[in-house]
Amino acid sequence: VFHVDWDIVTAEKAGFDHFMLKEIYDQPNAYRDTMGSRISMDQDQVILNEINMTDEEIKSIDRIHIVACGTAYHAGLVGKNLIEKLARIPVETDVASEYRYRSPIITRNTLVIVVSQSGETADTLAALREAKRQGAHVIAITNVVGSSVSREADDVITTWAGPEIAVASTKAYTSQLIAFYLFGLYLAQKLETVEADEVKKVISALQELPQQVEHILEQSEQIKTVAEKIALHNNLFFIGRGLDFAVVLEGSLKLKEISYIHSEAYAAGELKHGTLALIEEGIPVIALATQEDVFEKTVSNIEEVAARGAYVLGISQEGNEELGKFVNESFTIPKTLDVLSPALSVIPLQLLSYYASLTRGNDVDKPRNLAKSVTVE
Amino acid sequence: VFHVDWDIVTAEKAGFDHFMLKEIYDQPNAYRDTMGSRISMDQDQVILNEINMTDEEIKSIDRIHIVACGTAYHAGLVGKNLIEKLARIPVETDVASEYRYRSPIITRNTLVIVVSQSGETADTLAALREAKRQGAHVIAITNVVGSSVSREADDVITTWAGPEIAVASTKAYTSQLIAFYLFGLYLAQKLETVEADEVKKVISALQELPQQVEHILEQSEQIKTVAEKIALHNNLFFIGRGLDFAVVLEGSLKLKEISYIHSEAYAAGELKHGTLALIEEGIPVIALATQEDVFEKTVSNIEEVAARGAYVLGISQEGNEELGKFVNESFTIPKTLDVLSPALSVIPLQLLSYYASLTRGNDVDKPRNLAKSVTVE
Repeated sequence: VFHVDWDIVTAEKAGFDHFMLKEIYDQPNAYRDTMGSRISMDQDQVILNEINMTDEEIKSIDRIHIVACGTAYHAGLVGKNLIEKLARIPVETDVASEYRYRSPIITRNTLVIVVSQSGETADTLAALREAKRQGAHVIAITNVVGSSVSREADDVITTWAGPEIAVASTKAYTSQLIAFYLFGLYLAQKLETVEADEVKKVISALQELPQQVEHILEQSEQIKTVAEKIALHNNLFFIGRGLDFAVVLEGSLKLKEISYIHSEAYAAGELKHGTLALIEEGIPVIALATQEDVFEKTVSNIEEVAARGAYVLGISQEGNEELGKFVNESFTIPKTLDVLSPALSVIPLQLLSYYASLTRGNDVDKPRNLAKSVTVE
Repeated sequence: VFHVDWDIVTAEKAGFDHFMLKEIYDQPNAYRDTMGSRISMDQDQVILNEINMTDEEIKSIDRIHIVACGTAYHAGLVGKNLIEKLARIPVETDVASEYRYRSPIITRNTLVIVVSQSGETADTLAALREAKRQGAHVIAITNVVGSSVSREADDVITTWAGPEIAVASTKAYTSQLIAFYLFGLYLAQKLETVEADEVKKVISALQELPQQVEHILEQSEQIKTVAEKIALHNNLFFIGRGLDFAVVLEGSLKLKEISYIHSEAYAAGELKHGTLALIEEGIPVIALATQEDVFEKTVSNIEEVAARGAYVLGISQEGNEELGKFVNESFTIPKTLDVLSPALSVIPLQLLSYYASLTRGNDVDKPRNLAKSVTVE
């Protein structure tokens, strides 16, 4: 179990008002450290020496289960999307407390990936044990070397985010995303599902992420202004499609955890099947529209909520500034590959939660009712 | 497209104040009609002559995708759970607007089941076409004979719920559940994954459902009393585990659609990973605890919210009345097999939405912003 002595770490806020803000700003380095030596000198290969599977074992994987809780579960939803895209293996992402009890169909060709920042999350650990009992190969993505999860998994991909103190996870989540990118590329190389040129292109874009995050952080004042407005509301919605949907789930959870605003994330195309009834004059809607293939569809969904008077913050990639015409406030993230955008688009959402919590006068680092690591079921 | 002449149908409320209430009360007959001739005279077999697949084709299914929107998507989540339990085939349930764009992995051994009350839902129809284009066998579950979905699918399991007029779906949803039970048993017979005795037991329990629904409807006053209390709140939560989680997702959507209360459903074990921060004095939490294998775990989660002052309505099966000790209000559904409980437990949730909407003075049958059948993307 990972213990933190509060008195000692107070000194370690490095000039920031809160651990959460410090950890948000730690992210460029967390990305660099998590990629670290896992990218070849020629920058054309992902090297994961920590994976002890033969090529034959990797080729025999016919299904992947990703199992986690809370924020790590949201990283797993991004992981599902990108592994399916890169390696064309069907992936199912499950909440750990559900997975254990639904008698999941596990065979020896099932790979199970568990994700836990602390490596001590009770439900995740129990899911790991159940998967191993049924004969699956288990890979853990965790931030704590020597944690229970890391000791019991067959292989461990350590995220090098450094200690995370704030209850609301930021750099651990994004480091988990980096771990999934590396693992997805690793599978794609082994299975030859992506051309070598394409792998190189993704690796090159991955390496640009840290400075792109820095660029976003420089614009934090813009997010702060929006945060101060939305902090006046008790209810709001996030929408997105595809990878954007996975990211808004995380953005919404973050906001809930520390601002106590009842926010909820929706697949943008699902809103009109019921929840649109809750959209009324002035209700904030935060819309991610970073994915080229569903950009127009997302804009249609934005128009649906705007027509009912919603106050919309739209976030898109550079080059899609026309989103500004459809929304009340817009924010642009640097241009990257669509598959990598979660590692950038979540940053303004983290800042939004932080400043909304601050505006509401909450205890940002230690929100009510919550523990950093949930070691009970 | 299915058109309804409002003047004519006004006469068809059969003495009920609203179509929604009439349709809730239609359910015992909708269950009977949907089972109808699909159960053998000896009551030991499910007969689905509408499925045109050879035994060999059925045996070769290695993955099922269920695709739908809104309420039908929630029926699909129940479908996933029970098909995996009964037939041991991995099932993935997707929101149709997401499915189309995530380049799903479809092979000729993938069975795709689309669910749509109207059979005209644009995203679902587009998903059906994409699945067929990629060579999958497609089964439709729909309430409208001759609808686009029914015409384009390979096979159709028609639900015999009769015309549904209220925007908020009730009897169409439960008839979809019955269709999934029948199909799950059908697969189990073909694949011999369930003993003949056990099949007989499930069929017998299925046939008891209509009168058990009638029994629940006789207790509607008890639900009305709780609904009048929760209608005073603008935010609330539903929790459940396993099949109960699938049902509370539907209960929450129903409440949103017509009461405009911001309700949100959570897998009970996930609450403590963030959303517990929103539980404060007096906030209503509706907890389903009908599943024996997770009953104790669900009670623990109820205690977590109760300790923060939540006002809890607990719903359990007959025989688990001890739930009453942990909650503010309790409601009991008749004893059934755990796998069948969704067909009963959703009834009090439908009534809860209806009476909450009524208490708030909303237009129950025609909620703001929503259409009965969503024929745009």
